[in-house]
Amino acid sequence: MDLHPDVAVLESLLGTWAGEGRGEYPTINSFGYHEQVTFGHVGKPFVAYGQRTTASDDGRPLHAESGYIRVPRPGRIEIALAHPTGVTEIAEGAVTIDGAALTIEVLSTTIGRTASAKLVTALTRSIQVTGDELAYTVQMAAVDQPLQHHLAATLRRTPS
Amino acid sequence: MDLHPDVAVLESLLGTWAGEGRGEYPTINSFGYHEQVTFGHVGKPFVAYGQRTTASDDGRPLHAESGYIRVPRPGRIEIALAHPTGVTEIAEGAVTIDGAALTIEVLSTTIGRTASAKLVTALTRSIQVTGDELAYTVQMAAVDQPLQHHLAATLRRTPS
Repeated sequence: MDLHPDVAVLESLLGTWAGEGRGEYPTINSFGYHEQVTFGHVGKPFVAYGQRTTASDDGRPLHAESGYIRVPRPGRIEIALAHPTGVTEIAEGAVTIDGAALTIEVLSTTIGRTASAKLVTALTRSIQVTGDELAYTVQMAAVDQPLQHHLAATLRRTPS
Repeated sequence: MDLHPDVAVLESLLGTWAGEGRGEYPTINSFGYHEQVTFGHVGKPFVAYGQRTTASDDGRPLHAESGYIRVPRPGRIEIALAHPTGVTEIAEGAVTIDGAALTIEVLSTTIGRTASAKLVTALTRSIQVTGDELAYTVQMAAVDQPLQHHLAATLRRTPS
């Protein structure tokens, strides 16, 4: 199935990625994680995203996220995500192509939280794809801490 | 892997479901759809949810949703969802077991929208599982229309 032209700029994301990351935050112990990410499509003007992480030390499941990515007009990107912690995230920003590198930079515009969710108030995401490598960082403001570095990972494209 | 005890009340949801539904709204033509839904878990205190629909008439992809369900305390339920239309949904309400029937009733408490998303302002979901049948209805307030019936479907559990 052909990728919808609205999201053609995201073509290099498509597929499955896996690799290692590291998380830190003032309120928790730093941790290493293994991550698997998939980006897929059904020919409509969005890319579906899902990820799961497991702890580097004992393989226990850690985080997960799922949602969708849209390109409402050239150069702009919109992400709608759900987290199993009872958090939803609308993030918006820029998508650029520079030679073989795809760069996405977004900032949360709306964070939804269930009554029992942790008080996450802002997230930024920076994603760069160069060939078969995907690197990202996440900044987070949560539990009365200012926006600051939280996650960094480098993933490799896995054979489909 | 054992289901986390916090979400044990949701055990009858787990697995894959498929069936037919019908959508209507004052601003669109009514439509029939085929739906596939999965509920899964990784042993943590949430159930992962994903669905896809295709048009009954020609099989083209229609909607999708993905997210997570939590039971913060007995009888309460929290749902965090992302929609590919650039909408996120936090919905909260009640989960009850009456004999063999599981009933979930939730109302949106936060709707997130990207800049290009349709103006959805409220959703309610009613889900009932009885044995191998799952029936649900969705009400929606959107594009200046009051909250009203939007979707109804009946699904059957599919062999795993």
